[in-house]
Amino acid sequence: MSAEQASKMKQNAGADLLWAKGLPLDRAIHDFTVDEDPLLDPALLPWDVVGSTAHVRMLVHAGLMSTADGDALCRGLAELYPRTLAGELPIRPDQEDGHTALEQALIQQAGPVGRRVHLGRSRNDQVILAFRLYLRNAVLTLGEQIAELAGAFTEFAGRHLEQPLPGYTHMRRAMPSSVGQWALSFAEGLNEELEALDGVWRRLDRCPLGAAAGFGVPLAIDREYTARLLGFRKVQRNPVDVNNSRGRHELALLNWLSSVAGVLEKYLWDLALFTTEEYGFMQLPDAFTTGSSIMPQKRNPDVVELARGRCRELKGLAAELAHLTGGLPSSYHRDSQLIKAPVLRAVDRAQGLFTVMARLVPAVRVHSECLDAACEDELYAAHEACRRAADGLAFRDAYGEVAAEILGERFAPDRHALSATHTGGVGRTGICACEAEIAGRREWLTRLRSRVDDRINALWIETDSKHE
Amino acid sequence: MSAEQASKMKQNAGADLLWAKGLPLDRAIHDFTVDEDPLLDPALLPWDVVGSTAHVRMLVHAGLMSTADGDALCRGLAELYPRTLAGELPIRPDQEDGHTALEQALIQQAGPVGRRVHLGRSRNDQVILAFRLYLRNAVLTLGEQIAELAGAFTEFAGRHLEQPLPGYTHMRRAMPSSVGQWALSFAEGLNEELEALDGVWRRLDRCPLGAAAGFGVPLAIDREYTARLLGFRKVQRNPVDVNNSRGRHELALLNWLSSVAGVLEKYLWDLALFTTEEYGFMQLPDAFTTGSSIMPQKRNPDVVELARGRCRELKGLAAELAHLTGGLPSSYHRDSQLIKAPVLRAVDRAQGLFTVMARLVPAVRVHSECLDAACEDELYAAHEACRRAADGLAFRDAYGEVAAEILGERFAPDRHALSATHTGGVGRTGICACEAEIAGRREWLTRLRSRVDDRINALWIETDSKHE
Amino acid sequence: MSAEQASKMKQNAGADLLWAKGLPLDRAIHDFTVDEDPLLDPALLPWDVVGSTAHVRMLVHAGLMSTADGDALCRGLAELYPRTLAGELPIRPDQEDGHTALEQALIQQAGPVGRRVHLGRSRNDQVILAFRLYLRNAVLTLGEQIAELAGAFTEFAGRHLEQPLPGYTHMRRAMPSSVGQWALSFAEGLNEELEALDGVWRRLDRCPLGAAAGFGVPLAIDREYTARLLGFRKVQRNPVDVNNSRGRHELALLNWLSSVAGVLEKYLWDLALFTTEEYGFMQLPDAFTTGSSIMPQKRNPDVVELARGRCRELKGLAAELAHLTGGLPSSYHRDSQLIKAPVLRAVDRAQGLFTVMARLVPAVRVHSECLDAACEDELYAAHEACRRAADGLAFRDAYGEVAAEILGERFAPDRHALSATHTGGVGRTGICACEAEIAGRREWLTRLRSRVDDRINALWIETDSKHE
Amino acid sequence: MSAEQASKMKQNAGADLLWAKGLPLDRAIHDFTVDEDPLLDPALLPWDVVGSTAHVRMLVHAGLMSTADGDALCRGLAELYPRTLAGELPIRPDQEDGHTALEQALIQQAGPVGRRVHLGRSRNDQVILAFRLYLRNAVLTLGEQIAELAGAFTEFAGRHLEQPLPGYTHMRRAMPSSVGQWALSFAEGLNEELEALDGVWRRLDRCPLGAAAGFGVPLAIDREYTARLLGFRKVQRNPVDVNNSRGRHELALLNWLSSVAGVLEKYLWDLALFTTEEYGFMQLPDAFTTGSSIMPQKRNPDVVELARGRCRELKGLAAELAHLTGGLPSSYHRDSQLIKAPVLRAVDRAQGLFTVMARLVPAVRVHSECLDAACEDELYAAHEACRRAADGLAFRDAYGEVAAEILGERFAPDRHALSATHTGGVGRTGICACEAEIAGRREWLTRLRSRVDDRINALWIETDSKHE
Repeated sequence: MSAEQASKMKQNAGADLLWAKGLPLDRAIHDFTVDEDPLLDPALLPWDVVGSTAHVRMLVHAGLMSTADGDALCRGLAELYPRTLAGELPIRPDQEDGHTALEQALIQQAGPVGRRVHLGRSRNDQVILAFRLYLRNAVLTLGEQIAELAGAFTEFAGRHLEQPLPGYTHMRRAMPSSVGQWALSFAEGLNEELEALDGVWRRLDRCPLGAAAGFGVPLAIDREYTARLLGFRKVQRNPVDVNNSRGRHELALLNWLSSVAGVLEKYLWDLALFTTEEYGFMQLPDAFTTGSSIMPQKRNPDVVELARGRCRELKGLAAELAHLTGGLPSSYHRDSQLIKAPVLRAVDRAQGLFTVMARLVPAVRVHSECLDAACEDELYAAHEACRRAADGLAFRDAYGEVAAEILGERFAPDRHALSATHTGGVGRTGICACEAEIAGRREWLTRLRSRVDDRINALWIETDSKHE
Repeated sequence: MSAEQASKMKQNAGADLLWAKGLPLDRAIHDFTVDEDPLLDPALLPWDVVGSTAHVRMLVHAGLMSTADGDALCRGLAELYPRTLAGELPIRPDQEDGHTALEQALIQQAGPVGRRVHLGRSRNDQVILAFRLYLRNAVLTLGEQIAELAGAFTEFAGRHLEQPLPGYTHMRRAMPSSVGQWALSFAEGLNEELEALDGVWRRLDRCPLGAAAGFGVPLAIDREYTARLLGFRKVQRNPVDVNNSRGRHELALLNWLSSVAGVLEKYLWDLALFTTEEYGFMQLPDAFTTGSSIMPQKRNPDVVELARGRCRELKGLAAELAHLTGGLPSSYHRDSQLIKAPVLRAVDRAQGLFTVMARLVPAVRVHSECLDAACEDELYAAHEACRRAADGLAFRDAYGEVAAEILGERFAPDRHALSATHTGGVGRTGICACEAEIAGRREWLTRLRSRVDDRINALWIETDSKHE
Repeated sequence: MSAEQASKMKQNAGADLLWAKGLPLDRAIHDFTVDEDPLLDPALLPWDVVGSTAHVRMLVHAGLMSTADGDALCRGLAELYPRTLAGELPIRPDQEDGHTALEQALIQQAGPVGRRVHLGRSRNDQVILAFRLYLRNAVLTLGEQIAELAGAFTEFAGRHLEQPLPGYTHMRRAMPSSVGQWALSFAEGLNEELEALDGVWRRLDRCPLGAAAGFGVPLAIDREYTARLLGFRKVQRNPVDVNNSRGRHELALLNWLSSVAGVLEKYLWDLALFTTEEYGFMQLPDAFTTGSSIMPQKRNPDVVELARGRCRELKGLAAELAHLTGGLPSSYHRDSQLIKAPVLRAVDRAQGLFTVMARLVPAVRVHSECLDAACEDELYAAHEACRRAADGLAFRDAYGEVAAEILGERFAPDRHALSATHTGGVGRTGICACEAEIAGRREWLTRLRSRVDDRINALWIETDSKHE
Repeated sequence: MSAEQASKMKQNAGADLLWAKGLPLDRAIHDFTVDEDPLLDPALLPWDVVGSTAHVRMLVHAGLMSTADGDALCRGLAELYPRTLAGELPIRPDQEDGHTALEQALIQQAGPVGRRVHLGRSRNDQVILAFRLYLRNAVLTLGEQIAELAGAFTEFAGRHLEQPLPGYTHMRRAMPSSVGQWALSFAEGLNEELEALDGVWRRLDRCPLGAAAGFGVPLAIDREYTARLLGFRKVQRNPVDVNNSRGRHELALLNWLSSVAGVLEKYLWDLALFTTEEYGFMQLPDAFTTGSSIMPQKRNPDVVELARGRCRELKGLAAELAHLTGGLPSSYHRDSQLIKAPVLRAVDRAQGLFTVMARLVPAVRVHSECLDAACEDELYAAHEACRRAADGLAFRDAYGEVAAEILGERFAPDRHALSATHTGGVGRTGICACEAEIAGRREWLTRLRSRVDDRINALWIETDSKHE
């Protein structure tokens, strides 16, 4: 430590703010380091309260804090909780971030004992924990939304199960499909995503608290206890790994959101096409369209387009985050503060998107006449060739016969004999199996939600009950 | 047009809001379409005022509007201008975006004539124009900042021109360099970026106004006149292209910012290394460091790390935008509304970064003793081998001799005889040529700035002078 | 169908190649559509043989093909299998891709019955199946490699468990750590990735065969039967979804590889730093370094740098694939042919990286003296403050005391009293728990591998046994 | 240097390979470092010959090499040149890369004097120079292709200048456009890209030779002389910057290709739509379509889709490269070897794309009847409202009148009175101005091409003439 540093440090003695107090800190530099934290942290503060409460209860349990101090701190935190939920705990720029604001509010609320809350942890693991609790909750919420949306697709499919729809390849009419089969494809895609969500969940279902600044603390803290209090399946053991995993698991969530967006984007693209004058297969209710300021005849599918754009935005935010993570040696570097913005933004954008889509999907109207008319005989060419091949003809010969009949304008397939009745075919779409899978994923989410919420609710109850 | 639509449209007659009035517009849907416009548009409103003023003056010039109406509109716009600059023109959610808010404020300000401002344009080209004026200005501001930063690097280099520094390859000490040579490398890199900026500028230096919704208007508007009034070099002729270029040119700007960030990131990385205990080559003033809440001995280079992180953030924002552009057929789709956020954000983040760096660069302190000590004789091994090769020895033999001397611990190069005196070498760094190039880029920017600002200032003057 | 098309189609009759025969196909256009398939497909052909065999056996089982035909086809495929494994089945440009080459080889091998193999499937689901089998196998291989690598890290950690290492934050010495704790962090990170791999596996563990061109076939195929034969957990029911999922699940795999790369990159970065002259903590064996053509004194860590670069390359390939997927309506578009290259490349690059790293990790040498010397007393400042706080002093006062002692150069912590003994701390790194987790993931992989390999081996056995 | 290293180095004495000789180099490790160089380098070797020739001539000019040696080397290089152009210079894996292969071939060709070619340069600047010469040439070739393609669009536009086409916004029919206006939009977009290409060119138009390993050489080399010989506008002065710019300028080129791809993607998307059964506006000649293996009726626009996919692939390759650049401190790190693959690949993919598109554009057939029929009266609604507003009616009233007439099915606009005749409007598309701009860009490219090619041709001539 240089003499200059030492002298500065001396001046700090007795200062009531954190590390920076007394230093000739430059305003612009300060603002640059504070950055967007005061805008972003309100989303994290309730989770900081939850994490801090568990931390305090562990300190008491481990004999590192008196019961009286622990109770006072837990009461103070419990009182601050509703304010953080309502976004009413102010964060002043000079407080740097929400975590400082919370600690200072706790000191105001609970008195000098508030200064003991930080024993045995570092800002580092405190923030990682709050962020992880936020993400764990976000995963559940987003998962629930997707399950609901998958349900909306199956419900829509059920209403239009028999409605013929030309199946396209290369955007050219190819083979017979149905509105039901089409709509179910999105439900199934979302099912696959919900199943894959388990991989993301497992990343987040480890408790980082106790890693401190990345190397633990020389105190007999009980990390398993805190993990249990917070409803984590296990401790994220290695403190260096806790820090190194910052950004990596967040990116997994954003990549998952991009993958979900990949399912939805196709639906929205189809809808944009199917509602054109040229296709005319479907129609959006007026509430989902807008007009033009100069063209009296226009009804534009803005909602569909903006939703489609958001799908790409989610991909874009994942791409942004991919650049913000990695590229650095082990352990903490301040660079990682910047990952917060795209993650919070992506979660927020995704929730908004899923909310609107849950209303859009059921509202789409189907133009049966147009669809029926579009399903011309040619659509059954491959079917007919298959049928003849199944009857023993070499497929290439069957193909040739059908081609010749189409050419001679005498192709007249027996449509009723031609439905695909295998699993997933138009004649057996598997809608019940699909619904059952959605229900299974819903149960899985409910189970996780209960585990997590019960534990967190218990945190307050135990805090309360002690004082009855 | 369906009967339902027609009936809705009828209800709209006489409505005083835009297209949406009277429709059973759903609140959540409405909010989804309005999205972040009220937050983002204030940055664009002053440019909308500028563009609208030029548009009005063209209408008068082309005989499409009476002089009295034109004057009234220009006066109204001129009065709104300072309010938009100060960010004091409110945008209500029900107004959708800033451009509607502006038009309605104009009607309030100037009376019913305000409703004539939209003649011969569409929301589409109005918005593209405002955004382009914003971007054109941003390019100049960012360019000026980079020129200033390049100057800071040369100034720093000048102060430490002779200070030896080990040159590294593979992060291993390789050959003699100097602090001056090192610092100049960033000035030169920025010079290259400033030169390349011309390519971005040319993209933005075309006037899109008159493209309307993407197909022009059936009126005798004079697009060259507006372009001239706004200081554009030329008209962006094809209206379809005007729409198609949306996002494409913005991405070029963000890619340029990423490239600049690529230069700065290396400087920041070097600084993070050179200020470690292990290297000890340089030191950051306390104002650029922070302390630790639990480690009394720490001084952390947070500013350097956050700046380095922002370099990656700029790359990330370009990556986000790359996903938001493209992937669609020609002409306008509402998806493109979403490109606004990452562009405005990137410009803002870059300006903040460049501001802080302009203060960081001159403040770095150099530890001469450490640097001198680090420049051991082995650093001159290649130099010595080269020298002997130049004296006629085959290079491989010279290489062997030097290796043997190093091994025998009797390697004693004559350092003074070994300086690189060619262009760019330690003995001839080309600092003057570098300064001259920066000056040249500065002049280029000043010339563009004058052209643009003079024209825009003239808009108000002519507006004023008419009424003296 | 236009008259022109019809006339062309007529000319095709009797042609012995696929659809294109007889058409005035332009050479350059043909090459553009064939593209890189002949180069890429050899990796997929063995899987096409496997998939085709299961398909044939299903056709027989479902009564869509005679046993004799089925046996002949299976024998032919079994004979081609080793040639595809050895990469010895040639793909001529005029065959377009490997799947055509295979079908034609089968016809050569098995005679005219070879023309019956395509009954009830489309090129579309044939290719998706082959690719999925390839990916499923790649996931297992990559997972096994990562488990091995995690083992190498724990083995290394075990050898250096007690060796002190300065723990860094912000690249500044912060708190005491150990080489064991450091090395374990990578094992733990890889454990987390292996757990998350389950999410990727589930995406790929569904059988797409039977989707045909995206809408099934009008034949009574038995999709569950094929899925069972190939060791899939279930059928990917919806045929539209089968097509829509193309690229989406591949991207999940590449994103997972990027995440793994995120773990490894930090290790490689640390190694690049720790082996510099400035740190001197570790050393690479000569086999992992290279020299310089002009600097006699250099030993460069090229392998470490190239491995680090490959980590970024994996991120880059995922980013490339993210652009290649999405952005299109439902169902098949030829655009998706292009996803093959980055996926195959990423798998190949990752395997090469993991192979080299499994040799690099155990080979690193640790310089104990340098490490011991770097762990100065100041590293224990936070520990000492914590200890005093635990003894009852308010933390801020303890912090002040320690700071004053450091300043007065009289700070002498009792290092032995200061080890972190909680889970993950230097004094209890949890190496056994980590090894147990790796073993658990290994078992999981072995279980999957057995399920899959047993089924595929049974395909040949049943084929053979029938003819004994 | 450790004793071990020294002893290894000793063993190397007299070895006839480069640095690695004698070391216990591990095969797998060696292969990992050699990587793809033998596959990629053939594209660079002709440029290495060119650069090496200029280097030798400078050495003679600067008095660092005898004329006799210089002549012998130049003759040897000139003889190798055609072999490198034909891709016939073999690169063996044990030679690591093409540059070693070239040097050894030169020694074979010219005798022991070949060993003198490396005086005063490093592998580092040798490779950067060869790559830059390759890129400079690629920029010219790509630019020429784009100018040709822009010409194809104007030619096509000229043939269909008057053909009505519905103009779309939100994929809904909006206002009248024409096939000419539509096709010109792509020519104009390409014009903008060609203008922006100047920014890329300037990045590459600086000579890096003389930077050596990043810190110059202690010899009196004449960098301006080499720059002149190779037709560079100037020297890239700072040697650290030369290394730091690696990847940065390559990325600028790939970003430019992505931007061009952004123009073309829209055309291809439009074409994919306009050629559907639903639109029926245009048709692809059979040579540009393929059939289906199971659907007799299909003609698929594979070429259009693959070309559209390539546009995204170019974006993807730029995204990959963005990950491979940056993230490292100054100066050379071996990581940067990996940038070669995506750059060479992108250039190659782009050239293939542009070649096919230059044939596709003129080949598209226009269905006039369908287009005429699609241009219904409603398309003129905005035009008519504008016209009435221009006649004095308040626009909102005009809008209302038109809406009522459409509703009442009595809307009958006078189409001939409604053409947009301003710059870029359907009635004045500006095709001549567009052609003039293309011609201007062509001239620019020709000028650069001449400058560069003349210089390089002069290299050989002067080499030859000396020996007559």
